[in-house]
Amino acid sequence: MVPWLKNSLVSEQLGLRTLQTENVQKDLAIYPAFQDVSIMVVLGFAFLLAFLRRYGFSSAGFSLFLAALGVQWALIVNGFIFHFSDGQVKINLQSILAAIMSITAVLISAGAILGKANLMQLICMAVVEVAVFAGNRWIIVAVLGIKSHISLMHVHLFGTFFGSTVSWFLYNSSQHPKVEKERSKPASDVFAMLGTLFLWTFWPSFNSVLVENEEEKMVAIYNTYFAMATSAVAAFAFSKATSSDGTFHMAHIQNATLAGGVAIGFSVSIIQYPWIAMTLGLAAGAGSVLGFAFLQRLKPALRIHDTCGVLYTFGLPSLIGGITRIILILIDSQEDLEGMGYLALIELGASCAIISLGLMAGFITGFLLTFEFWKAPPITKYFDDQAFWEFPHLAAGY
Amino acid sequence: MVPWLKNSLVSEQLGLRTLQTENVQKDLAIYPAFQDVSIMVVLGFAFLLAFLRRYGFSSAGFSLFLAALGVQWALIVNGFIFHFSDGQVKINLQSILAAIMSITAVLISAGAILGKANLMQLICMAVVEVAVFAGNRWIIVAVLGIKSHISLMHVHLFGTFFGSTVSWFLYNSSQHPKVEKERSKPASDVFAMLGTLFLWTFWPSFNSVLVENEEEKMVAIYNTYFAMATSAVAAFAFSKATSSDGTFHMAHIQNATLAGGVAIGFSVSIIQYPWIAMTLGLAAGAGSVLGFAFLQRLKPALRIHDTCGVLYTFGLPSLIGGITRIILILIDSQEDLEGMGYLALIELGASCAIISLGLMAGFITGFLLTFEFWKAPPITKYFDDQAFWEFPHLAAGY
Amino acid sequence: MVPWLKNSLVSEQLGLRTLQTENVQKDLAIYPAFQDVSIMVVLGFAFLLAFLRRYGFSSAGFSLFLAALGVQWALIVNGFIFHFSDGQVKINLQSILAAIMSITAVLISAGAILGKANLMQLICMAVVEVAVFAGNRWIIVAVLGIKSHISLMHVHLFGTFFGSTVSWFLYNSSQHPKVEKERSKPASDVFAMLGTLFLWTFWPSFNSVLVENEEEKMVAIYNTYFAMATSAVAAFAFSKATSSDGTFHMAHIQNATLAGGVAIGFSVSIIQYPWIAMTLGLAAGAGSVLGFAFLQRLKPALRIHDTCGVLYTFGLPSLIGGITRIILILIDSQEDLEGMGYLALIELGASCAIISLGLMAGFITGFLLTFEFWKAPPITKYFDDQAFWEFPHLAAGY
Repeated sequence: MVPWLKNSLVSEQLGLRTLQTENVQKDLAIYPAFQDVSIMVVLGFAFLLAFLRRYGFSSAGFSLFLAALGVQWALIVNGFIFHFSDGQVKINLQSILAAIMSITAVLISAGAILGKANLMQLICMAVVEVAVFAGNRWIIVAVLGIKSHISLMHVHLFGTFFGSTVSWFLYNSSQHPKVEKERSKPASDVFAMLGTLFLWTFWPSFNSVLVENEEEKMVAIYNTYFAMATSAVAAFAFSKATSSDGTFHMAHIQNATLAGGVAIGFSVSIIQYPWIAMTLGLAAGAGSVLGFAFLQRLKPALRIHDTCGVLYTFGLPSLIGGITRIILILIDSQEDLEGMGYLALIELGASCAIISLGLMAGFITGFLLTFEFWKAPPITKYFDDQAFWEFPHLAAGY
Repeated sequence: MVPWLKNSLVSEQLGLRTLQTENVQKDLAIYPAFQDVSIMVVLGFAFLLAFLRRYGFSSAGFSLFLAALGVQWALIVNGFIFHFSDGQVKINLQSILAAIMSITAVLISAGAILGKANLMQLICMAVVEVAVFAGNRWIIVAVLGIKSHISLMHVHLFGTFFGSTVSWFLYNSSQHPKVEKERSKPASDVFAMLGTLFLWTFWPSFNSVLVENEEEKMVAIYNTYFAMATSAVAAFAFSKATSSDGTFHMAHIQNATLAGGVAIGFSVSIIQYPWIAMTLGLAAGAGSVLGFAFLQRLKPALRIHDTCGVLYTFGLPSLIGGITRIILILIDSQEDLEGMGYLALIELGASCAIISLGLMAGFITGFLLTFEFWKAPPITKYFDDQAFWEFPHLAAGY
Repeated sequence: MVPWLKNSLVSEQLGLRTLQTENVQKDLAIYPAFQDVSIMVVLGFAFLLAFLRRYGFSSAGFSLFLAALGVQWALIVNGFIFHFSDGQVKINLQSILAAIMSITAVLISAGAILGKANLMQLICMAVVEVAVFAGNRWIIVAVLGIKSHISLMHVHLFGTFFGSTVSWFLYNSSQHPKVEKERSKPASDVFAMLGTLFLWTFWPSFNSVLVENEEEKMVAIYNTYFAMATSAVAAFAFSKATSSDGTFHMAHIQNATLAGGVAIGFSVSIIQYPWIAMTLGLAAGAGSVLGFAFLQRLKPALRIHDTCGVLYTFGLPSLIGGITRIILILIDSQEDLEGMGYLALIELGASCAIISLGLMAGFITGFLLTFEFWKAPPITKYFDDQAFWEFPHLAAGY
């Protein structure tokens, strides 16, 4: 009936057959969470990036394209690195999930250069980024021995540093002032808020779906939920506190509310008490808003132009989360100081490897993207759908 | 591995261990429905309230804030009232769900005073409302012996009466005419429609998720689905019938389509035949539209200003549902008239308790919110994002 | 406790009781996918059709109404045809699912005549279409022996041919030029993109939810996922290729990305290798865009006016999928040429039956809809919410 699953004779034998049935049931059990993650990546990120006033088509459209293309490429790359045996790449729902989660890095990087690259440049970036991230994961999983699902939580860190470095090149090639088109408008901000609400609600699925042990999975869901709740509260509180006239800033709310989920990713199943998750969410939300409010001023000096603020939405919370994991491991190590110190060192090494490979790969990719070959849009066409999309009526009703 | 679950020595012993594993599997089994309810509350209500032309940021943003803060507060309050033992508050997915469902009351009340309160006032309201509702539930669960999941269905009734009373105070302090900003615009109405469609689709999960018995859960899903379907049909039919020129009114469609789900909540697993559920949905949808169309005129006389029409979306259908439950119990009582009459009395008592406590708590909260201390927005800033949000460009493109 | 399930004495006996419990657990197991399909139909199609600049209310509102009414009517019709026994119609989650999937045909047809019919005409169309499609399914299931869940995949083919024929009548009665109101505007295009992203993400649930065998179900999920991924890539590539100035066309992206899911529906659990699913998705996406770009010119000659392009979004990919299924069966038939050739003939017969019954029923319905009785909107009111909805402020802010 199902030749796909029957195409090796061995599987006809009882033992492997049972194993496969188990796998099928495992896959079916995580299918609802798979759909949560899928809608987060396809719809959540697409709309989170749709905040620019004249860039809604490209934000939503290119995100869908990168997701569709990236998943296929990530499946191939991950397949050859992690799931290759007997001359065949094994595909199951978990490997598709790992591919979907990998392309989060691409979408974060796309956020950093949002409005400044055409689709060909984005494709080139996606191809390099997915491959380097898969190699990176191989290092931290196979060499450093970190669990596979934790290795995927480095995706935010990698995407941020990769994207920011690429952005450095695209900014470098111009000295454009802040333009009208780089701002949001109320309707596009509400669309972005829609993306935020999806990501906020489904983040517990993102952090828990690949956790195998059922108890750990529930703990991951609880911890992420609590961290999201406190980071949303922190985002509002600090947005008001950092404003000169006591108003909220929509960009803070759209992004910093998600910081808790990013930060807790690394430690999602080792955190023992809800208050730790809540404190971490609070710190991440606060750090994210403070980064937006104060570090933003440093960016012209650093020559980085990060349209969507991924450095504060994903980068800073990731760093906070990485440091927290190391601290948690060290605190836990009273009984076995040496062993735990060693584990903490490995975690530190993993994060450093991710950051440095992200920077290096981003540097090379950014350099490649400055070539004439790509026919990059001129600076006057930055942040404008009109460069890429057929607009029957330009003026009317935008 | 998972110290959170291991922190009592007792749980190491076989018996309790097994019990915990069962709990984990129960939690995992309801996780997809948990996400349905979560997206209903976070996204559905946020966008349902986003219909005002200049209030989209506040509707979506403040709803997210109230959800994030309210869940934590509700977990604590519910925890101490319902799940406190051995000096510890037990948290599982069902208690988080009860917390999420409790804050529906807050979001309904926020709909009643939409555009007339700042975030500090909303926080004060949320804190009081969640606590009083939890106390209220304790009365009807522990004293009157009503099932816990049915007690959560009173959330609509409580939120409406609480919010309307609060609204009475905020209206009382002014005599403002109907302003331009209090109207919707086509784009904001489509956003509100998005919220409606989410709520409409996922309402069966809301009504069934905490039903323990699997057969009753399926019955709850079927009944809610049928009631939603007929109330949507009724909303369209009566919207056209009550219009002077045979057109539909968007506010009727956005709200009255949901009346079926509200009305059937109380009786969701005792209704025997689909036609009862369908009739109830029809009555609730019709009642909701008729309330919008005719009772609306009474509101100036009652000095109530209910921006979102929660009285007709949630209040009236809840009353219809409560009465239906009592009738259903009485009809079922042919064999045991006395016992059933007693049960019906208890139901009546529960509803009366909810309404009177909602009115009283709303009265006190409304009075508190009129204090200068809160720096409430002036009437000219009602229904306007500009009072709370940073708007780089006021005129352009709204 | 649950009288609905207890109302026959027989079920008290052990055997049937166990059977029922099994059914309940089966229903609970597919409930998450049920919600995916429900949100696809209610929200995905509603927003996919919301691309017209002045028709957002009607697109979203009427879709909800047709879904709510259509499900009830489809349940009754399907019930009497497929689930009638002992004088009772049996309802379970699978029969509701079949009803929801049946009304996809209505929503596709509504897309073809979008903006040209009032709600009464749509209701008439829905009533006829659901009944004819149910009869049609009875023919291909009971007479031709095609599996029930595969028969539901013909819904796209049926809806397209039915709707296009109806559209021929509504177009026939006028000779209107391309008007401003028939175009999209950026905000409405982003709403339509929202619908696309929902449909794109949840299509694997649509194609797999009624597959009984767990292994086949997983294969259906994988195949659909891969087909969706490649058809999205193809949609972008061919949209750029067919454009005179190398830009993307939003209508292509909104629609052709979904072609893969439509095309693979027929063969979703018999495709053996991912590359077949991917190639099929690629072909469907490409065919859909090419149809939009080139066949569109033929439409005035054919006197068909297909507002939403359902001929290319659903019709063409369905045909490609049907042909592919026949080819796959023939290729598989090396061992048993005669038997397989017979099967292929049956498939061909089923598709032909669907198309011809769709055309015939569409012809009759379209003819009925031209009567004065329906008070159809005049041509000047085509594509305009104002004809059906109360607009307090006509000019402001649309």
